[in-house]
Amino acid sequence: MLLKNISVDCVIFGFDGERLNVLLWQADPQLLLKVVRENEDYEQVRILYESHPSLLTDYTWGLIGAHVPYETGLDEFAQDITSGSTGLRNVYLRQFQTFGDCNRVAYYRVITVGYYALINPRYHDLQMSPLTRKMMWFDIDHLPRLCFDHEKIIISALNHLRESVKYHPVGFHLLPEKFTLTELQTMYEVILGEKLDIRNFRKKIQKMDFLLESGEKQVNVPHRAARLYRFDKDKYELLVKEGLTFRI
Amino acid sequence: MLLKNISVDCVIFGFDGERLNVLLWQADPQLLLKVVRENEDYEQVRILYESHPSLLTDYTWGLIGAHVPYETGLDEFAQDITSGSTGLRNVYLRQFQTFGDCNRVAYYRVITVGYYALINPRYHDLQMSPLTRKMMWFDIDHLPRLCFDHEKIIISALNHLRESVKYHPVGFHLLPEKFTLTELQTMYEVILGEKLDIRNFRKKIQKMDFLLESGEKQVNVPHRAARLYRFDKDKYELLVKEGLTFRI
Repeated sequence: MLLKNISVDCVIFGFDGERLNVLLWQADPQLLLKVVRENEDYEQVRILYESHPSLLTDYTWGLIGAHVPYETGLDEFAQDITSGSTGLRNVYLRQFQTFGDCNRVAYYRVITVGYYALINPRYHDLQMSPLTRKMMWFDIDHLPRLCFDHEKIIISALNHLRESVKYHPVGFHLLPEKFTLTELQTMYEVILGEKLDIRNFRKKIQKMDFLLESGEKQVNVPHRAARLYRFDKDKYELLVKEGLTFRI
Repeated sequence: MLLKNISVDCVIFGFDGERLNVLLWQADPQLLLKVVRENEDYEQVRILYESHPSLLTDYTWGLIGAHVPYETGLDEFAQDITSGSTGLRNVYLRQFQTFGDCNRVAYYRVITVGYYALINPRYHDLQMSPLTRKMMWFDIDHLPRLCFDHEKIIISALNHLRESVKYHPVGFHLLPEKFTLTELQTMYEVILGEKLDIRNFRKKIQKMDFLLESGEKQVNVPHRAARLYRFDKDKYELLVKEGLTFRI
């Protein structure tokens, strides 16, 4: 049985080295209707869709999300729909806010618990569930028309991420395993939405002293190859214990 | 109609100058049962209570909370139950986390959206709703036995507050309008759970330069009267625009 009044929506952020993107999808309306008609579990959802057919003919994009099954915990379900809808596994996923305005979804009352994921698309092959009609990355600065209050949810997720990256090293989930200092700075700049002074930024990063030189350099670049670094999680945790304050 | 699977719980923090306290309550079981029997709105809750009478004979303490009405938004309802159950109005109240483990409440599935409030009890008279049997402040370090997962919720609220006071001036909601530097430091120490070096603390605070000397001193104290300060919100906001980084 699905909880009719509770859903989970996941804002999946991917950083491609230059832009911060969000993964959005559209369900196949015919298949969706078939599934909700055949599956007893979806009875409540079926009634809603059948009494409000415009829900099915809405071709705007949406976040990956679904109603919560009665027997699945919220955190577990956020993992389930992320991996089930996209193929993404073992990703950084965190709850950030619950949206519960009365009219956030037309037709009936549904609150949604918002989670966001941080990935680097280089390490993940996207796999679409059979229900998916389209799935695509969109630049956070150029979002398409979105259903319900999903634009508001994405903006809230970005604001939460913006706070979080300043005080915690979560941004490294968006980077490749080995990255240049320029890629690191670009990642911060696209999240914070502002240019950072290169000298100040590098001074801050070097002072915190949790980056390891990998000994390698970029290859196949049209400019002088830059050094590649890694984030040293063990060292970072040791430094925090010794009193390090992370601050970008 | 009440949403059977969704509740809101409020962790009300009060700082008395020395300790961080949480406001907890117990409903009157007879009155509660009477209300749920007489009120059609409470039909779902009545069925739950009547089929599980142990819910009514549980004399442990709990957070102020209730099931969300179909026609009330989450934020609005958090305000409603805070003021309706305690008389507290115009308080700092923020959503911090939603708890949705399958078995967090025995008997049936209910997710709860957690909010916390920050008050200074000096400015608020507590008023109990007719349903209340007992309502009391408890030291955060000496909590009584709590129902459901309310202890976990309080600890999560405290952890969220701990993060928040480091980077934002929200702690001032806990202080009287005019306070000594010692009261300010004590407030930080009880929230962070650690002693702070007095010289470093004062240097940090003075460097941020958003405290105003009120020109007054403590009265009726057995030691030398200390100066009283105010938090200058307008100046703080101006400083932030000019690049101030709040950090305790």
